[in-house]
Amino acid sequence: MSSSGTAPAYRRLSVDERRSQLLSHALDLFAHRLPEDVSLDDVAASAGVSRPLVYRYFPGGKQQLYEAALRSAADRLEQCFAEPHTGPLTTRLARALDRYLAFVDEHDAGFMALLQGGSVVETSRTSAIVDEVRRDAAGQILAHLEAAAGPGSARLRMAVRTWIAAVEAASLIWLDEGKQPPISELRDWLVHHFVAVLVATAASDPVTAEAARRALAMEEPEGPVAELVRRVLPVVADSEHLLGQ
Amino acid sequence: MSSSGTAPAYRRLSVDERRSQLLSHALDLFAHRLPEDVSLDDVAASAGVSRPLVYRYFPGGKQQLYEAALRSAADRLEQCFAEPHTGPLTTRLARALDRYLAFVDEHDAGFMALLQGGSVVETSRTSAIVDEVRRDAAGQILAHLEAAAGPGSARLRMAVRTWIAAVEAASLIWLDEGKQPPISELRDWLVHHFVAVLVATAASDPVTAEAARRALAMEEPEGPVAELVRRVLPVVADSEHLLGQ
Repeated sequence: MSSSGTAPAYRRLSVDERRSQLLSHALDLFAHRLPEDVSLDDVAASAGVSRPLVYRYFPGGKQQLYEAALRSAADRLEQCFAEPHTGPLTTRLARALDRYLAFVDEHDAGFMALLQGGSVVETSRTSAIVDEVRRDAAGQILAHLEAAAGPGSARLRMAVRTWIAAVEAASLIWLDEGKQPPISELRDWLVHHFVAVLVATAASDPVTAEAARRALAMEEPEGPVAELVRRVLPVVADSEHLLGQ
Repeated sequence: MSSSGTAPAYRRLSVDERRSQLLSHALDLFAHRLPEDVSLDDVAASAGVSRPLVYRYFPGGKQQLYEAALRSAADRLEQCFAEPHTGPLTTRLARALDRYLAFVDEHDAGFMALLQGGSVVETSRTSAIVDEVRRDAAGQILAHLEAAAGPGSARLRMAVRTWIAAVEAASLIWLDEGKQPPISELRDWLVHHFVAVLVATAASDPVTAEAARRALAMEEPEGPVAELVRRVLPVVADSEHLLGQ
């Protein structure tokens, strides 16, 4: 719930306060309903203001309101991936994923409507905002890897960006399957997924190999990478024929 | 180029022949231009027929023609992932990826316009067709894994579906970066990516672990999994601290 829901309607808000109050109510509504099921009347009612007031702030009507709400959701999502450059990389990634998955959980219907495509409010502008979030998240992760190992390669960038796509797909599947498995299991799997893609990419790209080596060196004996290694070994133990000599 | 381009316009075609001739020309046009830059006049000119004839077959105009062309592209894409259940799994996957990536290469502009969202011709129907292709591809891959190891789990399905999303993202990045790296390198990396995700998922799901074991047992000493293992070992060699005990 938005904290602005408790602001009395009769108090005179500044232009910026009023705008962000309306956006906050709009985001709440768009989060849980299809865009076509949200009207400016709903936003006015939710914020306790008149419909003309909503139109004064968003003269472009619902499309403008939707894009502004999406813009504010994008800003929040970009903050999810901001993380200090200290500690094991998988710890940083797990924290970012916890924030991101909480956002997905909180904005479930809107998240699905936005990403499944074909929505009446989807335009090249809304697609550009979504793509900006993807690029920003990839850029933040690359910055962590590059801080440890120097400039990335095209292959490393592709690995990170395809992992972002996998996270997005996993989020949609998770929502579609009634939010199963529990968020913590999904987060742990996505962390393992990242490590696996990083290491597999290291196999064919020296820059990624160096980034993977530096990242692995920061991991802890009881951390998720150690757990992944311990659990994977029995799976591949029967495959000595693949080790040659 | 479509072979129907050589059919003389004056020969009397059956209704089905004419329809598929028009669709083939439309698909060629939509493959290389933005949907908004293709008109029914272009389709008529390309097929050497009159505009009213195109309208007789597609009375719904460009939207109907686009959806029919997309439907025929979807059918072709679904065929890309059909593959006999013999030989190492990575060989089957590499063959399917070769067909899929050739399709992406051949339909570059249309593929990007379709998947980047916000196109004027995008509707919930076009999104449903795209989603059907994704589900079909995931279903085909699961069938290969299940044929070897029995019914899959929710986690295995999620792993396969997120890999499909990663393939799609990689295709868009590949087109965006001027078709770099060469297709064969992209295909090999996507195969490694699949093996990595399968094995990482095996770490937290017994059903996937069994599927991974069966799949690895079919791999050959000179195949891509053996190559992946040989190249990954030096990357993780410095990380003995993660093996604990």
